[in-house]
Amino acid sequence: MTHQQSLQDAAAVDVSAPRDSRPPVVGMVGAGQLARMTAAAAVGLGIRFRVLAAAPDESAAQVVADTMLGDYRSTDDLLSFAAGCDVITFDHEHVPQAQLKALEQAGHAVWPSSAALRFTQDKLAMRERLTELGVPCPRFQPVGSVADVAAFAELTSWPVVLKAVSGGYDGRGVWVCDDPGAAAEVLSHGLPLLAEEYVPFERELAILVARSPSGHGAVYPVVESVQRDGICVEVLAPAPGLSEDKVLAAQQLGLELARDLDVIGLLAVELFETRHGELLVNELAMRPHNTGHWTIEGARTSQFEQHLRAVLNLPLGLPVMAAPAAAMANVLGATDPDLHGKLNHVMAADTALKVQLYGKPVRPGRKVGHVTALGRDLVTLRDRAVRAANYLATGSEEPAGRGVMGAGRPL
Amino acid sequence: MTHQQSLQDAAAVDVSAPRDSRPPVVGMVGAGQLARMTAAAAVGLGIRFRVLAAAPDESAAQVVADTMLGDYRSTDDLLSFAAGCDVITFDHEHVPQAQLKALEQAGHAVWPSSAALRFTQDKLAMRERLTELGVPCPRFQPVGSVADVAAFAELTSWPVVLKAVSGGYDGRGVWVCDDPGAAAEVLSHGLPLLAEEYVPFERELAILVARSPSGHGAVYPVVESVQRDGICVEVLAPAPGLSEDKVLAAQQLGLELARDLDVIGLLAVELFETRHGELLVNELAMRPHNTGHWTIEGARTSQFEQHLRAVLNLPLGLPVMAAPAAAMANVLGATDPDLHGKLNHVMAADTALKVQLYGKPVRPGRKVGHVTALGRDLVTLRDRAVRAANYLATGSEEPAGRGVMGAGRPL
Repeated sequence: MTHQQSLQDAAAVDVSAPRDSRPPVVGMVGAGQLARMTAAAAVGLGIRFRVLAAAPDESAAQVVADTMLGDYRSTDDLLSFAAGCDVITFDHEHVPQAQLKALEQAGHAVWPSSAALRFTQDKLAMRERLTELGVPCPRFQPVGSVADVAAFAELTSWPVVLKAVSGGYDGRGVWVCDDPGAAAEVLSHGLPLLAEEYVPFERELAILVARSPSGHGAVYPVVESVQRDGICVEVLAPAPGLSEDKVLAAQQLGLELARDLDVIGLLAVELFETRHGELLVNELAMRPHNTGHWTIEGARTSQFEQHLRAVLNLPLGLPVMAAPAAAMANVLGATDPDLHGKLNHVMAADTALKVQLYGKPVRPGRKVGHVTALGRDLVTLRDRAVRAANYLATGSEEPAGRGVMGAGRPL
Repeated sequence: MTHQQSLQDAAAVDVSAPRDSRPPVVGMVGAGQLARMTAAAAVGLGIRFRVLAAAPDESAAQVVADTMLGDYRSTDDLLSFAAGCDVITFDHEHVPQAQLKALEQAGHAVWPSSAALRFTQDKLAMRERLTELGVPCPRFQPVGSVADVAAFAELTSWPVVLKAVSGGYDGRGVWVCDDPGAAAEVLSHGLPLLAEEYVPFERELAILVARSPSGHGAVYPVVESVQRDGICVEVLAPAPGLSEDKVLAAQQLGLELARDLDVIGLLAVELFETRHGELLVNELAMRPHNTGHWTIEGARTSQFEQHLRAVLNLPLGLPVMAAPAAAMANVLGATDPDLHGKLNHVMAADTALKVQLYGKPVRPGRKVGHVTALGRDLVTLRDRAVRAANYLATGSEEPAGRGVMGAGRPL
């Protein structure tokens, strides 16, 4: 049985068949803020929404009535969780391939599929597949020794970006190495590694696409994202100053990638825009994405609703903007644990802002919420969103210091 | 201790005091669709949200993690429910005065207060208070006999509207009586009754206001509502063709009523617009209201978020429209129990519509969801919303027949 056949069978059994008045049940593995915000969208659709959480105080577990506790690495836990669900989906990409395949082999509709998710779990497989598809990427090479990295740097020059093919250590999977000594340090951990060209980009862009089992696709406006220390801190929608040609090319790229990688649900594509105006694919994610949080209030259909519509094989919602422009700023934890005490001041200072808090304890550098401003002028909107996010984090309108979030070069 | 002092004490203890990083806990008594939609708003605010449900399959109980089962008429259940909550609020007005006062006397912040809620529970008290305040109302008179009703009809002419002062029977509390015989039938049930002038109105309007313990108020655009058989079936925002003067007068009336009745949270005021352009107050509600459902996507701050902000004494959100116009149509159950099977077609036919389903089993005439269309032209928006709502209800684009929803004159 081909993969495509198994998709159709699953759809025929679980999604499209005539059924009684029971609403569909979507099970999301993972209970972070992405599952939490998906839960809010599920309320409106009238469906049943279940999450698999590691602990009862996780962000989504706090709010979802149908929370099951379990380990996403345990096939038994996953199969128990999936029983009674019409569709299984994810708020992260960490479920191992063997466990994903066990769910599929047990007849569950798993969206995105194990075959699609592999391209978010294995960065070498992703780079090789994108290269086959002719998609522009940074130059890359699997490396196993300092000599390999040095040979790669002969082609691309230092610094070299080393990436864990999958996973990482100390919560990181990407290192910018200025010289062979830095590369040796990373290599000493014994992980399979990929070397990538360091791209001196002008800025980062992101594309967000949804695709359903019947092959329908929908793409959001292209956005600019601002990263600091490898964490998304701001998003501007639509990406300012991007020519219509480039917008269309990027949207086309997103839709084609979703089709070619057979993604069901959301696909986020992070891009570098180079000095020469080239767009290179940096990373892929197959789930609601930080660069799409602005869609909750800023688009006619939020990414969370869209993901649910896609995995349920419902027609996709209109992905157009609900305002001329939107700016989103993440609230990154600082040292003050009390977000709610500061909410009062933020709301009083700007009654039009939209604040989302994730219910997570504050830890330095951790994403604990975000702020969205909607209107016309992105410069003003960005300023309003960033000031509010910084105030929520620190009690000051200054940006959180780099020191709070750890050292490191901007990636 | 005066009522005002007790409010301030409660606020000082529960809302404004410096506190640790624990998010505030809002407890909502009742678990219908209003609590369900409030739960979705609570997710974004990062607060804890608890509901008191009569049964685990109620609309909000399906989705709220912190659901407690109990009886809203039981003081013990209410006190157990309120333990650990910073604020108690309601998705209906049926908690009896004695139980409300028991909660207040135990030191809980109850919003709206028992004193305010009385004006939604006792229609005679409401009419008398509004009259004292000089607010235009239909003429009214408490009645205990057919002779009383006939004497009232001498002043106003038949038909006469009889209303139960509180509660009702057979799920109804309002009867339009064409003659003394019809009045005798209603009187035979032995309820305390109020006679009201039958107002041959041109249309119905509604005002929605929020007010916080610190006295801040916010008012939404005035809307037109269309009722059928006493059930709200459509809402148009803003009310078409209403002069700026009348909009401002109505908004002012709403804000003043919220202040004068000391309402904390939302106050919905239903109005008749008469042939002569007069605005008469028909009913009051102190909770999220059907005439405000369009605000979920159609206003910068939804009524559900606004209610939470108000009862938490957070600054109120901007109540302006997020689109030039919005039309909302309720999905009233017909005979087909399967809403989800029809969702596919509605979404395919109109990808911009916003559908909210409440998770309630379909019963004839029961509100099981609503549809909102946003855009510029209210005629088109109304058509789109109504067609979709009718299709969800019946599988046809024709309106549900009157027969399905029971006989009766339009009120």
